[in-house]
Amino acid sequence: MFAKVVIVGVGLIGGSFALGLKAARAAERVVGLGRTPQALARAKELGIIDEACTSPEDAMRGADLVLIAAPVAQTGPILASLLPWLEPHTIITDAGSTKSDVVAAARAVLHERIHQFVPGHPIAGRESNGPDAAIVDLYRGKKAVLTPLPENAPDSIEKVAHAWRLCGAIIHVLAPGEHDKVFAAVSHLPHLLAFALVDDIANKPHADLLFQYAASGFRDFTRISGSSPEMWRDISLANRDALLGELDAYLAQLNHLRARLAAADGAGLEAVYTNAQRARCAWIEAIEAAEKPRASDQESGK
Amino acid sequence: MFAKVVIVGVGLIGGSFALGLKAARAAERVVGLGRTPQALARAKELGIIDEACTSPEDAMRGADLVLIAAPVAQTGPILASLLPWLEPHTIITDAGSTKSDVVAAARAVLHERIHQFVPGHPIAGRESNGPDAAIVDLYRGKKAVLTPLPENAPDSIEKVAHAWRLCGAIIHVLAPGEHDKVFAAVSHLPHLLAFALVDDIANKPHADLLFQYAASGFRDFTRISGSSPEMWRDISLANRDALLGELDAYLAQLNHLRARLAAADGAGLEAVYTNAQRARCAWIEAIEAAEKPRASDQESGK
Repeated sequence: MFAKVVIVGVGLIGGSFALGLKAARAAERVVGLGRTPQALARAKELGIIDEACTSPEDAMRGADLVLIAAPVAQTGPILASLLPWLEPHTIITDAGSTKSDVVAAARAVLHERIHQFVPGHPIAGRESNGPDAAIVDLYRGKKAVLTPLPENAPDSIEKVAHAWRLCGAIIHVLAPGEHDKVFAAVSHLPHLLAFALVDDIANKPHADLLFQYAASGFRDFTRISGSSPEMWRDISLANRDALLGELDAYLAQLNHLRARLAAADGAGLEAVYTNAQRARCAWIEAIEAAEKPRASDQESGK
Repeated sequence: MFAKVVIVGVGLIGGSFALGLKAARAAERVVGLGRTPQALARAKELGIIDEACTSPEDAMRGADLVLIAAPVAQTGPILASLLPWLEPHTIITDAGSTKSDVVAAARAVLHERIHQFVPGHPIAGRESNGPDAAIVDLYRGKKAVLTPLPENAPDSIEKVAHAWRLCGAIIHVLAPGEHDKVFAAVSHLPHLLAFALVDDIANKPHADLLFQYAASGFRDFTRISGSSPEMWRDISLANRDALLGELDAYLAQLNHLRARLAAADGAGLEAVYTNAQRARCAWIEAIEAAEKPRASDQESGK
């Protein structure tokens, strides 16, 4: 049981974490801390938080656990605002999509208090945002990746892992750099590719004609290009080295495929398409199989 | 009212066309023609066709309208098998995803009978295939693109347009070459990009780790890479010139974006992401707005 949990950023990610803990009756008091009084007021109205704070001093007093759920570029400034009121037993975690830069920012701000910061990244989201988008089961059956630091005590890591498990998440552990390489490949690069395709089409003189005939395949392929440009600018910059590496590998792959197409090498194209189709179908089968036992585990309270 | 409609290929596309016409009570008799007796038998069992034929001669006798719903590379051979039994009043159309190559194949086979072939492409699909995947409302509210030839009589074009309208589709008209350029951009290129990404990831030594963390954004982005490799090999080759043009434009765009990323040009990245996000949101709003009045038109039988 947490006596006091502080959520910095009461939107989709922070709000759903709060709702998950409340549903598990695991937090005596949930306090929202943020810059916009409207969002805080709405979060209180919705029962996401018990108390709205605009002062870090008030929020941090007696806090067990703090979740920073804000754009990654704000992690450093937020930590700096919390540090003067950081009590020795308080553990801070975050929900940022990149980890190496968050860890660097946290080290630069927290110095010898870095042991109180356990970095994390829940792999869940929706297209909508803000307190109204928060839902109690956002994290149910989803992965929460922790990227603990050598300075973190086992108890501190377990405190954060426990909170995510109470929200229904499955805990995974990666090193921060490993995390960033993985997500450069399976998340950041696809976002960049989708943004690039839609921008490319939108800039063509006959864009209206093209969009008129775009159908469901295009809709799914480009769904992630509806995401926040500011957030993805920050993620791209924060994970620049890993993203450049993945982008270069993909450009080499596209050039290879272009050569096969230009040579009308049907067998060569089919080999790539077949490998992709098989890998995707195997992946879908694996995640569907993995989600089933997890759902029943949770239902039986394991 | 059509006295006799022939469906060559009783799978998702052909079967749904048959079901649409039957639901509109617009066909006295629907005959399925195909190579696999099992599919034909199943289509008859499901009420998609009234009669199964493996002989083109029997199928074509007295036919008003023939739909070829088979992989585009088979259009020429299928037309060659129908030609000896093609009666003067019969109109043939097709459902192929590319049109320039289909028109060239049709001209090479039909010669002076080319006026009896009205090329088409319904913009609808599902991930599943075969007669069991066919549904009565697959085309409801969807576009059916006709790419008529100078040789087609207005009545012939109208016959095909009328059949698609009876299935609930909205008729659009493009020239074959224009059709192929449009779909290279909004359909064929995204398929190639999705196949390329999944193949790229699947070939990495740590592919299992990467797939383990792929989430819903990746799932949607790569959904189209679950499509048939053979079908997409054929489409890629059939529309090679237009697809190469789109791929080159996209490669230029990616190289441009790579330079911005390498230079840590946040404003430059954000400009591309913002343009893409706005264009995609505007497109989604436009298609949602366009679908609403159509749905009500159909409900009131207009």
